[in-house]
Amino acid sequence: MAAPEAIAPLAKQLSTTMAAIHSRGWCEGTGGNFSCVLQREPLLLLMAPSGVHKGAVKPEDLILVDGAGRVQRGHGSASAETSLHLAFVEQTGAGAVLHTHSQAGTLLSQHYGPEQEGVGILELRDLEMLKGLEGVRTHACSVGLPVLANDQDMGRLRQRANPLIENAPHGLLIAGHGLYAWGKDLNQAQRHLEILEFLLEQHWRQLLLQSLVR
Amino acid sequence: MAAPEAIAPLAKQLSTTMAAIHSRGWCEGTGGNFSCVLQREPLLLLMAPSGVHKGAVKPEDLILVDGAGRVQRGHGSASAETSLHLAFVEQTGAGAVLHTHSQAGTLLSQHYGPEQEGVGILELRDLEMLKGLEGVRTHACSVGLPVLANDQDMGRLRQRANPLIENAPHGLLIAGHGLYAWGKDLNQAQRHLEILEFLLEQHWRQLLLQSLVR
Amino acid sequence: MAAPEAIAPLAKQLSTTMAAIHSRGWCEGTGGNFSCVLQREPLLLLMAPSGVHKGAVKPEDLILVDGAGRVQRGHGSASAETSLHLAFVEQTGAGAVLHTHSQAGTLLSQHYGPEQEGVGILELRDLEMLKGLEGVRTHACSVGLPVLANDQDMGRLRQRANPLIENAPHGLLIAGHGLYAWGKDLNQAQRHLEILEFLLEQHWRQLLLQSLVR
Amino acid sequence: MAAPEAIAPLAKQLSTTMAAIHSRGWCEGTGGNFSCVLQREPLLLLMAPSGVHKGAVKPEDLILVDGAGRVQRGHGSASAETSLHLAFVEQTGAGAVLHTHSQAGTLLSQHYGPEQEGVGILELRDLEMLKGLEGVRTHACSVGLPVLANDQDMGRLRQRANPLIENAPHGLLIAGHGLYAWGKDLNQAQRHLEILEFLLEQHWRQLLLQSLVR
Repeated sequence: MAAPEAIAPLAKQLSTTMAAIHSRGWCEGTGGNFSCVLQREPLLLLMAPSGVHKGAVKPEDLILVDGAGRVQRGHGSASAETSLHLAFVEQTGAGAVLHTHSQAGTLLSQHYGPEQEGVGILELRDLEMLKGLEGVRTHACSVGLPVLANDQDMGRLRQRANPLIENAPHGLLIAGHGLYAWGKDLNQAQRHLEILEFLLEQHWRQLLLQSLVR
Repeated sequence: MAAPEAIAPLAKQLSTTMAAIHSRGWCEGTGGNFSCVLQREPLLLLMAPSGVHKGAVKPEDLILVDGAGRVQRGHGSASAETSLHLAFVEQTGAGAVLHTHSQAGTLLSQHYGPEQEGVGILELRDLEMLKGLEGVRTHACSVGLPVLANDQDMGRLRQRANPLIENAPHGLLIAGHGLYAWGKDLNQAQRHLEILEFLLEQHWRQLLLQSLVR
Repeated sequence: MAAPEAIAPLAKQLSTTMAAIHSRGWCEGTGGNFSCVLQREPLLLLMAPSGVHKGAVKPEDLILVDGAGRVQRGHGSASAETSLHLAFVEQTGAGAVLHTHSQAGTLLSQHYGPEQEGVGILELRDLEMLKGLEGVRTHACSVGLPVLANDQDMGRLRQRANPLIENAPHGLLIAGHGLYAWGKDLNQAQRHLEILEFLLEQHWRQLLLQSLVR
Repeated sequence: MAAPEAIAPLAKQLSTTMAAIHSRGWCEGTGGNFSCVLQREPLLLLMAPSGVHKGAVKPEDLILVDGAGRVQRGHGSASAETSLHLAFVEQTGAGAVLHTHSQAGTLLSQHYGPEQEGVGILELRDLEMLKGLEGVRTHACSVGLPVLANDQDMGRLRQRANPLIENAPHGLLIAGHGLYAWGKDLNQAQRHLEILEFLLEQHWRQLLLQSLVR
């Protein structure tokens, strides 16, 4: 297993990133959860324990979780949503997964959520900021952010997410719940998170403006 | 009475919590008041004196108030709303009570406030963030936040609140006034406050979106 | 004239207050101006020089201005709006005057501004936060915030303000321009500013909600 | 070429300014870019390298770019939009150019953007804050902010911008993209940026209010 000295820099960066995300109001209460890949073979995630306030987690309070979702080091239990983190890491090769509960994310995930257990789509288009998503090279495009129905059964939720992950724009929404964003490392995951949260807030303002001013 | 060394850590935490709440715009001017249970037998609350700016109260400026609302130690007077703090502490076993005057809380407390002296209800439902309220285990539920008519007579206000406290979701609104949130200790009260304020802001955005975009 | 050692604590407090006001977005660019009474006989105001960014004024950069609006000490010129500061100080006995250009203040000052050179009124009512204005003892009241037409001629603007100052709720609006708030000292002026800005933001949200959701 | 000791103070100020702009949410992800003129003959710009997070660029990470857009010192590549920075610097004599992607700027740039490749105009009027733009001396005026169609071809975008720069109010919008603001030095550019961003946010609120409340 990774030596403590290999963990320290990443743990410090993850702790700082979580505090910054909380200060923006994107993980109120004990909402949100955040993970980084510490090693791939065998898989080990560094993440915050479940049920704590993400704005004040010290590097030494982070836990190590294996590919089956079991805590391998540290105090506390792993989030029930760990299996979703594992799905994104395994299917996309992501090195970090950030899950937020923002105002715009929550609102639009309900607005565009599927009626039953299908998938909704939130279409984002014609904005320069789309270029902040790795792989997008022009504003003149349309990106579909998938919206899954929420579920307290994590097995079902992961099954629902599986077929969508490959084509998702480094993120997806869960209805009435919030946003998952990922990237090849913590820096890129943070970039994708900021871009997607910006685009969600922008979309909500577009909806207001377009419905009012014609 | 509690020795000064027992007071210091709690006083420091309460002072820091109040500054954080002010920095979010939830207790402008001299608005809001905040208390923690220092001991139960006999009851002693640690709280900010009345009429001061809650963003800059030092730990040593906090006062001790007994179960009859009398100041037992420190300078300044107890808030007129101390009897409400005592009601929540006594009826729920709460260890901390946080009272805010946020934009969304003020707005929705008027929108859903009772016509006369009855009780209004603000219904919150189908959101993952509801699980941040102790005892809620699924998003697929509905939580009714009571809204009382405002009153400058604290005896009447407490009487109105009494029958609602037991079933309230760790919080209630007073019309045109703001939110009370409580928890078993200061950490939990802060969590409930952040969750309820998030849900109020979300509800106001839902009202706008639903009325505009059909 | 006041000795430098008498100036230092007030200068430090004013500098800190201005930085806090800028951090809230209430005096963008070089907008806003802020003054404190250093002595009454003869009158001397401590204030920021004109045309500087109010978020980064050091205590030693503040200037002293006399009752005729002339700079008595320090570098830079006095704001063109100094005569309004003097009007509030002289007519109300205020010890500090804070002038902001917030989003809600600018918006509502235009919405309720007078057609010609008369006076508009923005009515604030039934809110607990009104009690943050010195002299208000119950939420069950109505407070009329005067709105003057804007003018680049400060003599005319002061003449227009004069008859309104005595009954104004420790503040008034200038149309398309912003808010003036005052208090017996800097602490009270800051309290009145926070309360009035809260009430303005609240009023704008009320207008949206009431026009949309009936 | 400029000696390192001549670069240090400007590099420090630019780094601080970028961090402040990021903290306001005006350059999320790797959005935005920012430059200062270090010397005019021959022209050298100090700017952030492309594709980095603008909230955390250290002074020593800034690069030097010449009048042809080539990196002359430092690591990383120059932004694709460098040729626009050069256009503003060369045609207006500006000493600093700040380019942001704010919510209001993005939203209104789409709302007022041209149908094809023409130019849209966003009219700002009757606001005291207009006086924060160098050369404006009264609120009683109208200022037209040009809105260009967006383009990934920087040569075409610069050609489109060229005829508008001289009469633009120290700034212009690119549709679905964001705001460029400039000034004779970094302080003035920051002032113009804050003023224009304030006026954009204000305009969006005016549109909502006017469409709802008549």
